Amino acid sequence: MNIAVIGYSGHVEMPHIKEISDICIKLGHSIARNGHTLITGGRDGVMELVSKGAKEAGGRVVGVLPFDEDGNEYNDFNIKTGMDYLMRSLVLLKSANLVISIGGEIGTLFEIISAYAYAKPVILFRGTGGWTDRIATTLIDGKYLDNRHLVKIQEVSSLDELEEFLR
Amino acid sequence: MNIAVIGYSGHVEMPHIKEISDICIKLGHSIARNGHTLITGGRDGVMELVSKGAKEAGGRVVGVLPFDEDGNEYNDFNIKTGMDYLMRSLVLLKSANLVISIGGEIGTLFEIISAYAYAKPVILFRGTGGWTDRIATTLIDGKYLDNRHLVKIQEVSSLDELEEFLR
Amino acid sequence: MNIAVIGYSGHVEMPHIKEISDICIKLGHSIARNGHTLITGGRDGVMELVSKGAKEAGGRVVGVLPFDEDGNEYNDFNIKTGMDYLMRSLVLLKSANLVISIGGEIGTLFEIISAYAYAKPVILFRGTGGWTDRIATTLIDGKYLDNRHLVKIQEVSSLDELEEFLR
Amino acid sequence: MNIAVIGYSGHVEMPHIKEISDICIKLGHSIARNGHTLITGGRDGVMELVSKGAKEAGGRVVGVLPFDEDGNEYNDFNIKTGMDYLMRSLVLLKSANLVISIGGEIGTLFEIISAYAYAKPVILFRGTGGWTDRIATTLIDGKYLDNRHLVKIQEVSSLDELEEFLR
Repeated sequence: MNIAVIGYSGHVEMPHIKEISDICIKLGHSIARNGHTLITGGRDGVMELVSKGAKEAGGRVVGVLPFDEDGNEYNDFNIKTGMDYLMRSLVLLKSANLVISIGGEIGTLFEIISAYAYAKPVILFRGTGGWTDRIATTLIDGKYLDNRHLVKIQEVSSLDELEEFLR
Repeated sequence: MNIAVIGYSGHVEMPHIKEISDICIKLGHSIARNGHTLITGGRDGVMELVSKGAKEAGGRVVGVLPFDEDGNEYNDFNIKTGMDYLMRSLVLLKSANLVISIGGEIGTLFEIISAYAYAKPVILFRGTGGWTDRIATTLIDGKYLDNRHLVKIQEVSSLDELEEFLR
Repeated sequence: MNIAVIGYSGHVEMPHIKEISDICIKLGHSIARNGHTLITGGRDGVMELVSKGAKEAGGRVVGVLPFDEDGNEYNDFNIKTGMDYLMRSLVLLKSANLVISIGGEIGTLFEIISAYAYAKPVILFRGTGGWTDRIATTLIDGKYLDNRHLVKIQEVSSLDELEEFLR
Repeated sequence: MNIAVIGYSGHVEMPHIKEISDICIKLGHSIARNGHTLITGGRDGVMELVSKGAKEAGGRVVGVLPFDEDGNEYNDFNIKTGMDYLMRSLVLLKSANLVISIGGEIGTLFEIISAYAYAKPVILFRGTGGWTDRIATTLIDGKYLDNRHLVKIQEVSSLDELEEFLR
């Protein structure tokens, strides 16, 4: 399976990212250990940390990048879409079988909404801040982003719970 | 100015669309009367009704369509993007100077978020239902979709208020 | 009908463009006079000159632009695709019912090939130089770009001949 | 390096593909043996055969697919672009460091032209038929596709010559 992880971009030493650094790296371990391919937006922040974890555990990482950007050092393969940040995220999500969201600003919100619109299963990693936590309070019937109930949004609160999804 | 109007898709006789039919048509009048070009996703529902209004008032309407679709009868010009629903919405929003949101399901939510991410001014027409009303309850500091305060989200409750923006 | 005109980009005073300036402007007149919408890549060179002609004759002009570019002064409406030069050309061609090629470098060659691949009728305006003339010498069975004979490529040598297609 | 291979699509048992089957498989071996990643359009024909070869030699293969297609069995990773055949080819080429062309119809011609427009080095494998051979007769100054000489087009006539480029 191709597992997309989305979340905060930015330098990995920024406080709100450093705070969840351990979770991200361990999530990378878990994705690799379960034999999945990690697919991210290929850049910094959560993307970089999870990719680092996946590589540590011998996994495979694909980065789907905007414009002609080079991506972080952990990508095995870079797709340079030539497209802007948002359009490239749509290509990323189309290729994913499951989407895990950690923290995140407007770009992450965009990706949560887009994944849902493409009927991709989304898991919100609660307690990681940003839109991952905020969107959870706005769900329709507690689990959906539309009245047609296109796909159920899942929530987890720990790496152990997430591990179950990845098995 | 290019004014994008986004909102519910679906047959114009569906109850939740019929209910706001009059508002949509009058908004079309207002956009045309103020000399703006209306730009929509080119399809049915709110898009069709606002376009009908704009044409009644002698305005100009451009539809930005997914795939090879033909669009509603009120479009003066169709852009057939060859892209899926979400990607085509990004092209639509890139070309807009102002975005007005009326009701709407997940596709409209996608467009609100995308417009914000592109730093386009968005006006939520309150009281029209769907995500236009729901997103208003989730705004950061009551006006934003991110902590960087990329662009202020406006809200109006009547056509008169909206008319002021369009002048 | 939406008529796409493709060809040399560059400043309109460059010799190889100035040389065909009169043809371009008169083609614009012809497109407008026959009630068609002109659709171009929205920029300089042949695009600008044909658009100038179309406006002189009271026609309507749509520019399909790359990135966030503004386009020439003759566009009634700008689509800002947010995409690179090549991708935006695909959106342009998807929206065209007929494609007319005048001179042109690699970008024009790209557009001739793409139009053909989308099975759009292409007219080569012979004698205008560049890839419009060069590709004519490479056609399969004198009229095609593939062995499946997807669509016939037409050639004209004068504005009068072209006028017949536009009627 | 990411090596893109482009060429005939279609069932691998079709005569004009079967004829070059051995070349394609050996090219796949060569790409893998030299430590490169093979990147293709992910479908049948030349794409499938080269990918088969690359996998036989322990290499890594990425398919960049149109729409929501699944791709051939040899892809390690599928990018599902959600875009049409031509747009997805642009994403494919953007991600390539070198492009090798084998036979091919209009889709391959499109990819040769696009690769050149993106200033990617292109190698034509002469004697494989289709547009790979035909375009070679139309080059400007024997090596270019435009007068600005954006990038030099190379030609090889054997796997041995190609092997040198891959080393």
